[in-house]
Amino acid sequence: MSARKPQYHLHLETGRKRPAIFHLTEEKWIEATKRHRLLAKKLKVTIGWDNEILEQSLQSADFMINSFPPKNDLRLRAPRLQWIQTTSAGVDGLMPFTWLPKDIVLTNNTGAHGAKAEESCLMALLMLQSRMPEVIKNQQNHHWQGIFTTPIHGKTVVILGFGDLGQGAGRAAKKLGMPVIAVTRSGKAHRLADKVVKTNQLDKVLPKADFVIVTTPLTAETRGLLNKERIQLLKEGAGFINIGRSPIVDYVALANRLQKGELLGAVLDVFDQEPLAPTSTFWETQNLMVLPHISCDDPRYIDHLYDFWFFNFERFLNGKKLKNIVDRQLGY
Amino acid sequence: MSARKPQYHLHLETGRKRPAIFHLTEEKWIEATKRHRLLAKKLKVTIGWDNEILEQSLQSADFMINSFPPKNDLRLRAPRLQWIQTTSAGVDGLMPFTWLPKDIVLTNNTGAHGAKAEESCLMALLMLQSRMPEVIKNQQNHHWQGIFTTPIHGKTVVILGFGDLGQGAGRAAKKLGMPVIAVTRSGKAHRLADKVVKTNQLDKVLPKADFVIVTTPLTAETRGLLNKERIQLLKEGAGFINIGRSPIVDYVALANRLQKGELLGAVLDVFDQEPLAPTSTFWETQNLMVLPHISCDDPRYIDHLYDFWFFNFERFLNGKKLKNIVDRQLGY
Repeated sequence: MSARKPQYHLHLETGRKRPAIFHLTEEKWIEATKRHRLLAKKLKVTIGWDNEILEQSLQSADFMINSFPPKNDLRLRAPRLQWIQTTSAGVDGLMPFTWLPKDIVLTNNTGAHGAKAEESCLMALLMLQSRMPEVIKNQQNHHWQGIFTTPIHGKTVVILGFGDLGQGAGRAAKKLGMPVIAVTRSGKAHRLADKVVKTNQLDKVLPKADFVIVTTPLTAETRGLLNKERIQLLKEGAGFINIGRSPIVDYVALANRLQKGELLGAVLDVFDQEPLAPTSTFWETQNLMVLPHISCDDPRYIDHLYDFWFFNFERFLNGKKLKNIVDRQLGY
Repeated sequence: MSARKPQYHLHLETGRKRPAIFHLTEEKWIEATKRHRLLAKKLKVTIGWDNEILEQSLQSADFMINSFPPKNDLRLRAPRLQWIQTTSAGVDGLMPFTWLPKDIVLTNNTGAHGAKAEESCLMALLMLQSRMPEVIKNQQNHHWQGIFTTPIHGKTVVILGFGDLGQGAGRAAKKLGMPVIAVTRSGKAHRLADKVVKTNQLDKVLPKADFVIVTTPLTAETRGLLNKERIQLLKEGAGFINIGRSPIVDYVALANRLQKGELLGAVLDVFDQEPLAPTSTFWETQNLMVLPHISCDDPRYIDHLYDFWFFNFERFLNGKKLKNIVDRQLGY
């Protein structure tokens, strides 16, 4: 009887098609085991690419890190599986959770994105306030035009969702001296927000926004939340930022208002189809900045994920409730 | 004998060719007098455009706000003149001060730019760290490419000059969690800088910089300070920002390193010739963002200038030394 004998099988499932920063590489895993030596000794680990060794791994796996877990007959194929960790914060691609046995816990990666999201929101807010889309266009045309803008200090930002990303946006706004109105499901007060309202108050606060930042997860409740009518509620000259998910917002309605020059501009980091097709009109929409889904992801992403997994594994061993358990009804 | 009779003649001299935000308009002046009623009653004010009424105004003016004061025979033409206020912070265009009678005080507008400079530096630092020049180019080419970058937190910034603009840059860096090394003439410690070194230590600190921000005024000491040899001291992947004056930096050397891909990128807000000529190669230099001298100027600039002038006028009336007196040797 030795405590050093691996007691659990962890399977890491990864995909070559995803950007390299999301690869669950052996190299990064080995680095992580050096940071968590004692915990790592309790594990037998397999790493699979593009489901090549998925079936045999499932047969003995206790835990799995996998953003695209198999949905058919999971319990039959993975008799010992009790915990799945995703690499992403958003689990909208896995809903509804009818495929997920009740006794398998699903945890997401929320918390990994806040620091980068904060800096990205700082940048996006200031780029819009400084009318960078026009300045950039002028550079392309070798055209010098003094576009002078006031500091952003004192302008109001409405932040949809106030989780990991939303609080990052909130910290950014506070650093810029901006009043923050957060819109959340609960409406519960938060130290980073001057005011928190429930989602049903959205129509009242949208017209107050100098800037809107969308950070909510995509769920049944948030899909289509910023529909055409609500995009119309944005005041003249408002700036718009989306670092959450694209189906929350009617981009066509948004683009129409941008083309008419009614809005200050938009920074969009997420799109229905990614990569955005070269033929998309959004690339050329006036005052719209297309970012390639980079605003919340640190290249050290997987290192952080591994650290978080070990943190949770220690909780598991101590019989504590895991962190980041996804609510199957709410979808985050 | 009435205290309400104007005792002093203030002449405002302005130019139509400058951007409108710098115009010393009657409208803005009237607004300012409402904020400073008692002081304004002591003044007779004339406003001249493009020197059209300059000569007769000089004959009786006690004070003048003028960024391009006449340099020939000033004492003869303006026998009562005792104080000139410029609209800009930099007075490099007025040097050397051989034309300025010893008994005329020259004050500049330093202090008006810090708030905007802070936000501009925040934005420029984050745009470089996020490799926005590449992301922008990709958008132009309808090309989706996930360029992932770490947060800027913890990277070192070297700030040249630590006056109004430099401290704005310092506040920006501190908000981003960046260690700050300031390079100043005195080397005197400052709460916003982790370290302050004298200019003669420049060669030692430049290689440590992840980012360099140039904020110094243009003086005999700073002209050509960042020459070709010093640009070569910037480490691979360093970012470069200039919100000060262009002749401080060898832009050709900088552009060469940018073209070779040796640097992260540059945000340049100032150029030798402004407007930058459409034929300039800087518009197309790789990873170089051309900003049209907008980083430190708030559109409420002249309002702030008038408020500052009244603040100083009150000091004058009370026999106190004026603020922002330009040192004729140092040039700022």
